[in-house]
Amino acid sequence: MLGLTILGNNSALPAFDRHPTAQVLTLEDQLFLIDCGEGTQMQLAKYKIRRSRINHIFISHLHGDHYFGLIGLITSMGLLGRTQDLHLFGPEPLQAIIDLQLKVADTALPYQLIFHALRGDEVIMQEEKIKVSCFKVSHRIDCWGFRFDQVKAPRRINPDNTRKYEIPAAFYERLKWGEDYTTKTGEVIKNEWVTEAAPRARSYAYSADTIYNEALVEKVYNVEVLYHETTYLKDLEDRAALRFHCTTTQAATIALKANASQLLIGHFSSKYETLDLFEKEAREVFPNTLLAIEGVTYRF
Amino acid sequence: MLGLTILGNNSALPAFDRHPTAQVLTLEDQLFLIDCGEGTQMQLAKYKIRRSRINHIFISHLHGDHYFGLIGLITSMGLLGRTQDLHLFGPEPLQAIIDLQLKVADTALPYQLIFHALRGDEVIMQEEKIKVSCFKVSHRIDCWGFRFDQVKAPRRINPDNTRKYEIPAAFYERLKWGEDYTTKTGEVIKNEWVTEAAPRARSYAYSADTIYNEALVEKVYNVEVLYHETTYLKDLEDRAALRFHCTTTQAATIALKANASQLLIGHFSSKYETLDLFEKEAREVFPNTLLAIEGVTYRF
Repeated sequence: MLGLTILGNNSALPAFDRHPTAQVLTLEDQLFLIDCGEGTQMQLAKYKIRRSRINHIFISHLHGDHYFGLIGLITSMGLLGRTQDLHLFGPEPLQAIIDLQLKVADTALPYQLIFHALRGDEVIMQEEKIKVSCFKVSHRIDCWGFRFDQVKAPRRINPDNTRKYEIPAAFYERLKWGEDYTTKTGEVIKNEWVTEAAPRARSYAYSADTIYNEALVEKVYNVEVLYHETTYLKDLEDRAALRFHCTTTQAATIALKANASQLLIGHFSSKYETLDLFEKEAREVFPNTLLAIEGVTYRF
Repeated sequence: MLGLTILGNNSALPAFDRHPTAQVLTLEDQLFLIDCGEGTQMQLAKYKIRRSRINHIFISHLHGDHYFGLIGLITSMGLLGRTQDLHLFGPEPLQAIIDLQLKVADTALPYQLIFHALRGDEVIMQEEKIKVSCFKVSHRIDCWGFRFDQVKAPRRINPDNTRKYEIPAAFYERLKWGEDYTTKTGEVIKNEWVTEAAPRARSYAYSADTIYNEALVEKVYNVEVLYHETTYLKDLEDRAALRFHCTTTQAATIALKANASQLLIGHFSSKYETLDLFEKEAREVFPNTLLAIEGVTYRF
């Protein structure tokens, strides 16, 4: 399952009950928290996402609307008695900020907070089933996007055939990952006799805050779901550029050039009370566009 | 008017939709923000308190539930184009935390943020009509309470007599502060002929987070309204002491010994879903007790 819950979709100033950026990606049964604006721990509680299920947090850059909720979440996890490791990926100065705030509070976390400083464009996490990379985008200060790729999708079991060859259910998980089955009498049941090819590996890219820059295209190329900021509507292209942000049309153009299947837009300026024009304008260029709405879980 | 709006009344962990500590005191038409837990800027918006009216912020100590919302508020004030000075009173390391967070964001505030480090027990603000003092309380880390005193309450005008002596309305403000009036013909109208004695000067004390310590009594002596933390009910006195907090009975005892007129209790532990027992227990010792309820403005 590729799922994404929006905890905040607004840009710098909270407004109209919209919170600053934070979202939770679900992939291969893992929860990844991407950015962590002020109030994220309350939003997690509101939308019933268990903090204890989050083991990886990704911070794109050090503008407050993307990380001011982090220290509160980290310390609350400690107060709740967390013991499992927490991996935090973010710009290098983030560590000093956290260390200073823990020190003045005389707080020692009861769990390991493992900090991974972002450098350039690189793979920052590689597990059996998931690979996460970061890539630089073009903002007023150092800023990274993140790309999450399922390494390989599991093959699909054909239940008629597994029954025919009398393969025990306990072996199904290994079948999904391509193994052949050997019967007690030594007969080899070829994997392809009982499974079908995997569907396309799932993928998600979060492009953070960025000015329009086509260099982004190759970094998110062929991604299934692309989240791209649209701080402004298309008539404010100049203001967007001045502030290192994007418009609806620009985000949709990136999605089109990158051959994404789905575009999700967010990081709306607090000057806009309603959001329907964002959707309309982006769809003119890239029809398969959705608005990132707070509290909604998108299942792709 | 002595008014107090509760923006958050919970201790360390946000729970049951209760936010961490923050409150706005209104005295002599000034708004003072006392502590600033995560989400305070959203709470200010929710309860329609204009950020621009706040010129003084007081931070008691550097546990996150009392200040994690400060940096977001400060930067939002900047984004909103604030130009008037903002005075911030807090423990000395707070300045380094703010400076570091502004620096990594490459943010220059468009207004003067004037930081006043708290030292011991001292007067930290002295204006014509208001005096603010801080006093050390006994917590796990350095922690201060704040006391706000109206320097002198204005005398009450007797409208029958001002009419009788034909004193122009433009002079009323000076009458309130004790001046005599001299007529065009040189006749002196004594102030006491046309005004009545001032009521008791208003005062408010916020005792922050503290273990039970009777040294507090003289610091808040004779205060009109005392806010005192009650993290726990009375049966958890040992736990309260272990964590440098107080129970209902302890807070009420301080109010009684300090000869306060009114006690307001808050900073409830997230282990309690309902709060009625807090009120009941405190009133057994100090009947004039109110619960600090989020979103309520108390007018004393």
